[in-house]
Formats: sequence, C-alpha cells, structure tokens
Amino acid sequence: MDGLTVAAAQRCVIEAMKQLGAESVPLQQALGRVLAEDVQANRDQPPYDVSAMDGFAIRSADVANVPTVLEVIEDIKAGDMPTKVVGAGQCARIMTGAPVPQGADAVIRVEDTQALSDGRVRIDVSVKTRNDIRDRGENMRTGEVVLQAGTTITPGVVGMLAMVKAAQVSVYRQPRVAILSTGDELEGLSDPFDANKIPDANSYALMAQVQALGIAPVLLGIARDEPTHLKEMLQRGLQFDVLLVSGGTSVGVHDYVRPTLEALGVQMKFWRVQMKPGHPMAFGVAPLTWVFGIPGNPVSSMVCFEEFIGPALRCIMGHHKHFRTTVTAKLSRDVKHKHIRTEFVRVMLRKEAGALVATPTGDQGSGILRSMAMAEGLMVVPAESKGIAAGEQVTVQLLDGTAFQSEAGGEC
Amino acid sequence: MDGLTVAAAQRCVIEAMKQLGAESVPLQQALGRVLAEDVQANRDQPPYDVSAMDGFAIRSADVANVPTVLEVIEDIKAGDMPTKVVGAGQCARIMTGAPVPQGADAVIRVEDTQALSDGRVRIDVSVKTRNDIRDRGENMRTGEVVLQAGTTITPGVVGMLAMVKAAQVSVYRQPRVAILSTGDELEGLSDPFDANKIPDANSYALMAQVQALGIAPVLLGIARDEPTHLKEMLQRGLQFDVLLVSGGTSVGVHDYVRPTLEALGVQMKFWRVQMKPGHPMAFGVAPLTWVFGIPGNPVSSMVCFEEFIGPALRCIMGHHKHFRTTVTAKLSRDVKHKHIRTEFVRVMLRKEAGALVATPTGDQGSGILRSMAMAEGLMVVPAESKGIAAGEQVTVQLLDGTAFQSEAGGEC
Repeated sequence: MDGLTVAAAQRCVIEAMKQLGAESVPLQQALGRVLAEDVQANRDQPPYDVSAMDGFAIRSADVANVPTVLEVIEDIKAGDMPTKVVGAGQCARIMTGAPVPQGADAVIRVEDTQALSDGRVRIDVSVKTRNDIRDRGENMRTGEVVLQAGTTITPGVVGMLAMVKAAQVSVYRQPRVAILSTGDELEGLSDPFDANKIPDANSYALMAQVQALGIAPVLLGIARDEPTHLKEMLQRGLQFDVLLVSGGTSVGVHDYVRPTLEALGVQMKFWRVQMKPGHPMAFGVAPLTWVFGIPGNPVSSMVCFEEFIGPALRCIMGHHKHFRTTVTAKLSRDVKHKHIRTEFVRVMLRKEAGALVATPTGDQGSGILRSMAMAEGLMVVPAESKGIAAGEQVTVQLLDGTAFQSEAGGEC
Repeated sequence: MDGLTVAAAQRCVIEAMKQLGAESVPLQQALGRVLAEDVQANRDQPPYDVSAMDGFAIRSADVANVPTVLEVIEDIKAGDMPTKVVGAGQCARIMTGAPVPQGADAVIRVEDTQALSDGRVRIDVSVKTRNDIRDRGENMRTGEVVLQAGTTITPGVVGMLAMVKAAQVSVYRQPRVAILSTGDELEGLSDPFDANKIPDANSYALMAQVQALGIAPVLLGIARDEPTHLKEMLQRGLQFDVLLVSGGTSVGVHDYVRPTLEALGVQMKFWRVQMKPGHPMAFGVAPLTWVFGIPGNPVSSMVCFEEFIGPALRCIMGHHKHFRTTVTAKLSRDVKHKHIRTEFVRVMLRKEAGALVATPTGDQGSGILRSMAMAEGLMVVPAESKGIAAGEQVTVQLLDGTAFQSEAGGEC
C-alpha cells in the first residue's frame, strides 16, 4: 500500500503549519478568532462591594436579636453612589448590584423583612458579616490576566472582553484561502447547462467547509486540462496562504497538476494517503503557500478536508483544538472492510436509551455526495479491521450540524 | 416557588414562534440557513455511464478467456465524449469519470492489463458485465427531490446544491434581532472609563451568542433608568422581529421595564422561571416582535439565552433541531443543590478512558462571567435533586467551542 498512514499524514501537515502574526479586529468581529495576546483587567470588577440581593444594607450587630426595627436612611440602586453612612439602628434600602454603603457590613434580603407604616423596616433574621455582599474585585482585579493568548473567542470570552472594555482585540490573522477546481469535464455554477458535463460541486462544498471555520475563501474557478492555463491558475493560487486544488492529482496521463506544481517550486510532502475515500490526497509547501491536492470525487474531497485541511486551517488560526470531536457509538448494522486503508464511513446518529447509535448513510460510493449531505458523522474503520459487526462500539467524528438536537436535554 | 418550570417555559416560547417567510440568497451565503423549498435535480448525475477506474473500456465477452490482446481505438478522459464504437477485439483507454463508449459493457482497471510495444493492450482478467461502471443517474435523476424543505444547509448540502446548479437558494428569512441593555450603572464599550460604573458585558455576550447562530444582531445601546428614555428605546426595539432586553426585569422599585413593555402593548407570557441562574427571565409577544426580558447578571443572561432564546431563534430560522446537544458525563466532584429550581452548572469536560468527565468551573456566582468563558458545557441539576455526588452520571449541554478536540479521533 503506497502513501502515508492517516496519522502520519496528519502529523506531516500539522508540523508544517504556523500562525501568521496578529491583527486587531473590533470586538464585534472577534467571535471564533483566537487571542494573540494576554488580556488584562483594566479595573476591579465589581468596582466596589455590591449587594447580591434586593434588600437592606445593615450592621450585623444590629440584627443579633430579631425581630428588630431599623430606620431607612437612603435608597441605593445599581448605578447610584451611597451618600450616607449607616449608623447604629439604621439601614439603607439596596438593589442587586448596588454599592454597599459605609457603615453597613451585610445585606438582608427583602423577603426577610417587613415594611412598617411609619417608613421604618422590621428585620426578621440574623445574619453574619458579609451576608449577601459580593466583594470588590471578586470577578477580576486590575492588572490580572483574565484571558490568555491562545484562547478561542467563544461568546463567554466576548463577554469577558467587553467587561474589560476591549473594543479592539488582538487575534491571529486568518489565512487567505483559494480554491481551484480542475478538469475539462466540469461545468461552473454560472456556466450554461451542458448535459455532457458535471457541475463543479467540489469548489462549493470546500468553500462551505472553509466558511464553517469562519474564513471567507476565494474561488478561482475551473482550470482546464491544458498545461498553460493550469499553470496560470496555479500561479494565481500561489499568491494565497493556502491553496486547495481539487482534482487532477491521480495517476492518469492527463493529470498535469503534479508536474505543474513541482515546476512552480512547490515541494510536495506526500501524494497518497492510506485512506478510503481519499487515497490520492497530496500536500506540499511553497515559499508563501501551503498547497493541498484533493481528490476530484466530491465525497473524497470533503473527507480529506475534514481529516487534513480543517485541522491545518485551525492550527494556522491559532486554535489549540484542531480535530473533530469524537464520540463512541453502537453500530446498527454490519460494515464490511476488506481494504488495508483507514476507512471513513458516513453515518447518521440517533440516541437510543441514552446511548448513541450510528447507521451508515446508504451507498458509500465516493461519487455519491448525498451520503455526505445526510451524514452527521464519519465513522473511523481502522486499516487493520476485518469488518465491524452490528452492536460493536465504534468511534465517530462529529460533523457540522451536530451541535443541536430535537429535544431539550436534561430534566429541565 | 413562583414562575414556570424550565420545560414549561421552553414549550411556551417554542409554541409562540413561527418562520418568517422565504428569501433567495446566493449559494455563497447559504451555509447554516434552512431550505424553504424542496430542491430537485436538474439532470441525471452522472449524466452518462462513467468509468469508476482508470483502465480500459472493453466488451466482457472479449475477455471471457484471458490473457487476451485487444486493439486500443481511442483515448477517453473525463470531459471527453467518445467518438468511436468499441467493436469485437477492441477497447478504449478510459479515465476515472469518463463516459463509457458505445459497444463496451465493462471496465478493466489498468493494474490488470499490460501495454504491449505495438500499441495494443493485454488483458489479464475476466470481468462481468458492468464491472467498474457507475450508472447514469446513480447520484440523482432529473426531477427527483434531492433535498427537502426544512433541511439545514451544511457543507455537504452546499455541495448537493452546487451539483444541481442552485446558484440561488430559497431559505427561511433570518429574524432581525435587537439587543438593549438597561441600567444607570452600566458603561458602554466606547464610553469613557468611570471607576464607579460596570461595563456593559451583556450586550456583547448576547451579540456573540446571536452571531454564533449565524445572525448579525443590532445593538441598541444602554437605556437609562428613566421612564421616557426607556420607553423610546423599547419602541425602537419593537421595530425588530426579536428584542432582547437585558436587566430591569426583577422586582425592584426602579425596574421600569415591565410596566413600560406592558404599556407598549407587549403581552407578557411569563416573568419568572424556576431556574438558577436566571430566575427573573421573561417572555412576551408584541404584534411584530418577540420580546425576551433577560436577567442583568452576565452568567444568568448567557444561560437564559442558551435555554430559551437560542432555541427560539433556531425555530424562527426553520431548523428542526432547536436545543443544545447533550452528553452524559461523570461528575468529578460533589455538587450541592439546596434549591428547588433547575440549576445549570458551568462545567469543563475532559475524556478519561474514553468517557467524559465534567468538572465545575470554580465559583458559580451569577456575576462571575469567567465561569462562563471557561465553560464547555452546562450541567443540568434537576429541581428535585438533593445534590450530586462525585462519580455520578450527569447530563451536560454542550456549548460553543466543543466541536473540536486536541487529538485526532479514532485509530487514523
């Protein structure tokens, strides 16, 4: 069997990647990017001791014996600064998030009090010092590193960045990605209908896979099987950080991609991977560009993206997690495996008595894109497997579209 | 305990939602949207019988006895149309994906042949009729519904749409979403630094949660605790399909949101949910707008988005899967639970011997946004729970950022 194993090819690709330096983006565009610098707090948060409840700021000594009646000297809501000091026998009405006034050392929640007709308040419970007070700096202290370089910016991280008023955020630069399809048999999306041609699905499936990672790729179109035109198109592609070339990488006499890439100075690292689908998967390095040669079959193309190109792009973007999350599932029916290559079987997933069940999406032919459109995961059949029987546990890589489910989870 | 259960509140919200009609978008912008119409194939795919291999198109009767030698009459690559008919004793050299010529009824792969010095080819194996031929229409047949209305557009679906040359796609319209924060204590992202104020994190965390669903929300800014200004801001918000109002929904005397919304004709469905964090979570319906009142604490705000608003937005967008995918994990340490509300505990997840382990992200105070920034999931503690011991199995809703992992999955 020629070509690298999948694991060796993945190592080869990831080792060749690096980040592309930092850029500053507005917080509104930072979701999904990766912090290129540590982020420090610019203030204590909360900026003062605040009430955790709606209630009354009191002196705990005053409520050692209850019930007791206190004078209400002030009304403090969030955003107000207290103007008075709470003395013995006094309290201040206080709202959640409002600053605790001087003199007070605890808060009693409104449910444990009774407003009296003379404007005073009856306190019905005793509490310890600091009861229902959130400490100044409890969330973050001025100068503290609250987010480290390398953090992926999730919605919670966006909230933290807003909390330290990071209107601009330093993140790793996105790679500029170009996609080129090759082959005289292909018809472009805006080309007139020709019954004898095959629509170029790969450019768009690859486009969407790149978009799903938060990157807007450039589609270069279709290179014809003509050496001069192909060379010109590949030269355009080599202006980008990453070039994806779909088709033309197998051994046919009309496949000009390999010699043309090499003539343009691309140093090829591998041309074959021991996998199915996706055997003719290639990877090379040019002075400015990482080049991926992708099989022309649409399913092979999408699987190769999942195994090599997605992880590479995530590595360039600065993410620490490069690979699809995997789950263990029970296989619903026998899967044959006669090859000595790792096989990626498109499966649908369902829950049965709390456990995941994986079912192959029908015909697994590498031309049958529907199997990929229906798929929720890629089941990994190890190269040495002699086939997997129904009921056995398998490893499944989760694809896009699996972040949500039909039913609410847990006993809500 | 006042307020609806989480499940009842979710039902109430989802039942009030509907899709907003269809619009046409370019395929380049269709990822993550939902098909509003069935999509039919506009051609047979493949458009003719094609070779599944690089090799020779032959007449199977000619190779009943092997080895045998055949004359090569033509060279057919993908994109070519054959010009000759294969007669007895003849064959055509053919590439993967190229049309099978008339006369031929099978393909022999190149590895099972030997080129002779006189230009003829020796065939070393016998094959059955249709060997290594992919049938015309194997992927799709003209007029066949290949994608149904209601399908979420994943990268594989984008590939299918390109295959039928759907340059424009009919999808459900996205809701227009407005976000309004309320409270005098808040400082906007571009406001000057005021040590006594609290930065408005909620607007941005909510923005990012909406963005993560593929929708670009409009931030209306901060409404002050002043009835006229608040009314004006809420009126602006009621021009949108969905209005998220952060803060001002609790019972404090300074909370004007409730009476103002009601004065503006918003019919409130609920004001409280039996959950922690997030108790003061509200939902109402105006003639043109769904209105969500969200607690002012940043963690409560994000959890309420996850449980109610995200599912509502996904429902409006036409998705069938509204809720976060859940997994079962082993709890790494005891979690107390004295409340009679459903609790959502922020957890990190790791794999240990193939099984998931959930660990709470430290202090769970509802003001501590860091717990949400670190979280990979929300562990659901049922209302009736008396606490969960280390080692018990728990249900965890997976948050953004969990689609990828550090190590490649399976035995690649």
